[in-house]
Amino acid sequence: MKKANPAQIQNTATPRSSQYPIDEVFLTRWSTRAFDAQPMPTVDLKTLLEAARWAPSAYNVQPWRFIVTQRESIHWQAALDLLDPFNADWAQNASALIFLISDTQIPSSEPPELFPSHSFDTGSAWAHIALQAAKMGYQAHAMAGIFHEKIRQQLRVPKSFNIEIAIAVGTPGDPQMLSPALREREAPSQRLPLSELVFSPVFGHTEGLVHRQDEEDHP
Amino acid sequence: MKKANPAQIQNTATPRSSQYPIDEVFLTRWSTRAFDAQPMPTVDLKTLLEAARWAPSAYNVQPWRFIVTQRESIHWQAALDLLDPFNADWAQNASALIFLISDTQIPSSEPPELFPSHSFDTGSAWAHIALQAAKMGYQAHAMAGIFHEKIRQQLRVPKSFNIEIAIAVGTPGDPQMLSPALREREAPSQRLPLSELVFSPVFGHTEGLVHRQDEEDHP
Repeated sequence: MKKANPAQIQNTATPRSSQYPIDEVFLTRWSTRAFDAQPMPTVDLKTLLEAARWAPSAYNVQPWRFIVTQRESIHWQAALDLLDPFNADWAQNASALIFLISDTQIPSSEPPELFPSHSFDTGSAWAHIALQAAKMGYQAHAMAGIFHEKIRQQLRVPKSFNIEIAIAVGTPGDPQMLSPALREREAPSQRLPLSELVFSPVFGHTEGLVHRQDEEDHP
Repeated sequence: MKKANPAQIQNTATPRSSQYPIDEVFLTRWSTRAFDAQPMPTVDLKTLLEAARWAPSAYNVQPWRFIVTQRESIHWQAALDLLDPFNADWAQNASALIFLISDTQIPSSEPPELFPSHSFDTGSAWAHIALQAAKMGYQAHAMAGIFHEKIRQQLRVPKSFNIEIAIAVGTPGDPQMLSPALREREAPSQRLPLSELVFSPVFGHTEGLVHRQDEEDHP
């Protein structure tokens, strides 16, 4: 039996298209810098965090913790000042900032024992936030450009926690609000082809993949 | 305006329920150990990997690489032998194994420069796989219990790559196939409450969250 070609998913809002029929949210989620400078309902913010709560982690340790500030909070400017100026410039129009930290230790281990997958597992919680945001018509943008030591002091992050990223979340806004340099870069990024990412049976090789006559392949 | 209570999402297949109205896939995704010991179409396997391809990463570096083996491959038993015996015992009924590795270096940096978020970003790619799998009626189960040095040698993983996890993917099967000890544990895990994960404005505090009169809160 010959299978139909998986439909090319073409997102009209973005130039992204996928080779295989993935859920549309993986293409509509992207890291916009144009936000509408409006608050978001607290219940929506908590819905994003609820999605993160259900992320998988080794031994269900759940190393992720979230320190959040909403734009209508008296702490908003102080939270923006924890981002490098390049990021603060556009993130000031987001609805909330989430500082994502991870517990580097296995809970209640004595003496304290390293939890090796604390960053990896917390990355999956971040993906849950980003995907739930896109599902709701928001977007979430992760930032590596943040002031780690200042964050640790100001947000009182314990030594045993690692500061992973900060996330700006909000409703997509008019790119015309951005500075000309940022406006030019305001487009969803592309990706390496699967052929450069997937190997079988060993690194750098692909001949181990099973190809059946009854299946079309879309390399 | 008073908002309606978000519907309690109750997954009939699992005892999980959420406090906020998240997409159902975050609850239906879980780490089953009961698989049906059947192959999965290669196009479906590639669809999972396509979802991972669109994960976000710092500077769009895309540090994730996937070394896959399908159960109908001549390399299947060799791939199973890279898991610790506890995991190999149930993962032998999966349709495919994916060894997920991450590039620890910034591509083309000279001298080689560390890419600090290689594990975190690869964790988001793992979440994309797991969620796309659940959307398709499959499940993906990540394993930390694997033989790292044996994997590096057998799968020829370069020194600059970190071995993150192995993933078993397949169609959920009859839990009666499992050994009695595993059968007893065959249920979706629960999670810490949001109140233990979310802080504002600083670690350990929650009084910084904005509570509006027009919103119900579900702590």
